[in-house]
Amino acid sequence: MASKENKSALNETKHVSTSNIINSMSIQSIKQKRKVEIDADALLKSILNKSISALSRAITLIESSNPKHQNKSNYIINGCLPHANKSVRIGITGVPGVGKSTFIETLGNNLTKQGKKVAVLAVDPSSTVTKGSILGDKTRMESLAKNPNAFIRPSASGNMLGGVAKKTRETIILCEAAGFDVIIIETVGVGQSETTVACMVDFFLLLKLAGAGDELQGIKRGIIEMADVIAINKADGNNIKPAKLAKVEFNRALHYLPQKVSQWQPQVLTCSALQNEGIEEIWEAILNYFEITKANQYFNEKRNEQDKYWLMQTIENQLKANFFNSPKIKAALQEQLTLMAQHRTTAFAAANYILNL
Amino acid sequence: MASKENKSALNETKHVSTSNIINSMSIQSIKQKRKVEIDADALLKSILNKSISALSRAITLIESSNPKHQNKSNYIINGCLPHANKSVRIGITGVPGVGKSTFIETLGNNLTKQGKKVAVLAVDPSSTVTKGSILGDKTRMESLAKNPNAFIRPSASGNMLGGVAKKTRETIILCEAAGFDVIIIETVGVGQSETTVACMVDFFLLLKLAGAGDELQGIKRGIIEMADVIAINKADGNNIKPAKLAKVEFNRALHYLPQKVSQWQPQVLTCSALQNEGIEEIWEAILNYFEITKANQYFNEKRNEQDKYWLMQTIENQLKANFFNSPKIKAALQEQLTLMAQHRTTAFAAANYILNL
Repeated sequence: MASKENKSALNETKHVSTSNIINSMSIQSIKQKRKVEIDADALLKSILNKSISALSRAITLIESSNPKHQNKSNYIINGCLPHANKSVRIGITGVPGVGKSTFIETLGNNLTKQGKKVAVLAVDPSSTVTKGSILGDKTRMESLAKNPNAFIRPSASGNMLGGVAKKTRETIILCEAAGFDVIIIETVGVGQSETTVACMVDFFLLLKLAGAGDELQGIKRGIIEMADVIAINKADGNNIKPAKLAKVEFNRALHYLPQKVSQWQPQVLTCSALQNEGIEEIWEAILNYFEITKANQYFNEKRNEQDKYWLMQTIENQLKANFFNSPKIKAALQEQLTLMAQHRTTAFAAANYILNL
Repeated sequence: MASKENKSALNETKHVSTSNIINSMSIQSIKQKRKVEIDADALLKSILNKSISALSRAITLIESSNPKHQNKSNYIINGCLPHANKSVRIGITGVPGVGKSTFIETLGNNLTKQGKKVAVLAVDPSSTVTKGSILGDKTRMESLAKNPNAFIRPSASGNMLGGVAKKTRETIILCEAAGFDVIIIETVGVGQSETTVACMVDFFLLLKLAGAGDELQGIKRGIIEMADVIAINKADGNNIKPAKLAKVEFNRALHYLPQKVSQWQPQVLTCSALQNEGIEEIWEAILNYFEITKANQYFNEKRNEQDKYWLMQTIENQLKANFFNSPKIKAALQEQLTLMAQHRTTAFAAANYILNL
């Protein structure tokens, strides 16, 4: 442009120059826009071409709170959707110390040897507090992290479990489109994160140790009810006998539970992740589970139910947020809470008053 | 009027007679209206004058689904509010066969002898199915039903636990205004009704039997965590020894639970409701609980939290109902669910689409 100006004989060059500045801004804006579109599209194509670095960058996009990035990530997710849903999604839980990292590393390396591609994600609502207590760095699973057919992604940050869940669910879709056929979602066996993970996986594995009571292991009874397989880890050396005893005990406990809708009878197995013993048997049990639930349609029904659950959850949370974020409602709520504390109105009358505003 | 007409000499009497019919209709309508207003007001005054029959009629009004009755019942509840909140509210649960009726009858009769007035209400979401499995008739607590200082009210009907909860919470207010100082809310130890009851009482008592495991008794672990006192009933005759053993076992189990916010250490006691043994000790433990929680402010804080919980619950339920009852939303929801099943959209994109309508 500058060289063109220099060549011109007209006096109006200065005006043209001013106009040029505007033009260059517009051009830059157009270029920028085009770049954004090209980026998202290129990223999508690279993901479908199984590029792990593209997958990584797209997940960062999903995790971004920048509204500009949302259009891009939605574009990528939509492009990935037709290529997703072909993996098996496995949830793994257990309290810290049970050996989750070692277990996932051993299982993951076994599976890649069979030609599978394994993605490991984490849901850890406590990670904002503990600065990433699980999967905070990849050093925990050193050999799996170096494995070209494995992909390890630390827990999405976020102070709301709902937000973490959304990001994790979308990350699953991207991993599947990138050709990963086994998706492992790891979580800590405390708090509410298991229920969240159970609502996004096909199969739920609970890791336990022999000798410690449920209370000591901090595992809630509901988690045992969710498990499709309970694996008693560290069944090696002097620990083999206690592990076998624990297996008998858990088997007895499982008999008290009602039959699962999946028609799958939960199993108790022992293993030593450190020595790669029993891991193959656990994987066979998992394959058996998928055979049964795919045959009886439970597999698909469960995924549809999960989709529906997340749809309704998102709508309900948003409805509440929209309502309670209104300054008028906020003020009325405070006012009614005060009246209630003074026993001048009931909860139901106060609710009606607020709803009628 | 008829005699007046007969005495008249005018020919227009027939016209007057027609006009008279209209007038009498108007008068009746005015009378009717006045009667309604007088009724609600009279009912309120009678309740505050401790009339049990007025209390009964007002509860029927609360339970009515007729919209006309809502204004009346709101009027009565508002009038009762300043006189309510002075009782202690006690939740009692336990599976069928544990002896809830006998326990409540014995405790109730003991308390009226001490000059207390005892109201017994029931929350039983299954009552619509089983036609009133608990407190369906008063024959279960024959002697307490005849006691002039006791008031027994069967479970409010309704197919939604939320509706039953609203009616029960409002009934508590009416009972308190009518001078009842001990409100007992009975429920079956299965399903979700305990959580509902726990959110409307100050103290939660769990009745158990010796010798039967938790699984066999159908009691969920969560209910044990909610209990302030666990009473092992039917500790008489040959059952005394097993009851004492069960007491030791439960005490051990309770030690694994985290310290309660109330700072109250849950207790395990044995009793025989049939022989009125141990009931006094249980009542003393309950009084001790109230002494501690009133001193440390937990009592009031809990009631405020409960009020807040019901306020939020009512608003959230109504928000959802309003949203999902719209035909436009219903249609969009079906459409998005179909797209999701075809993997053409995600739960989060579908939710956003529906919310933006």
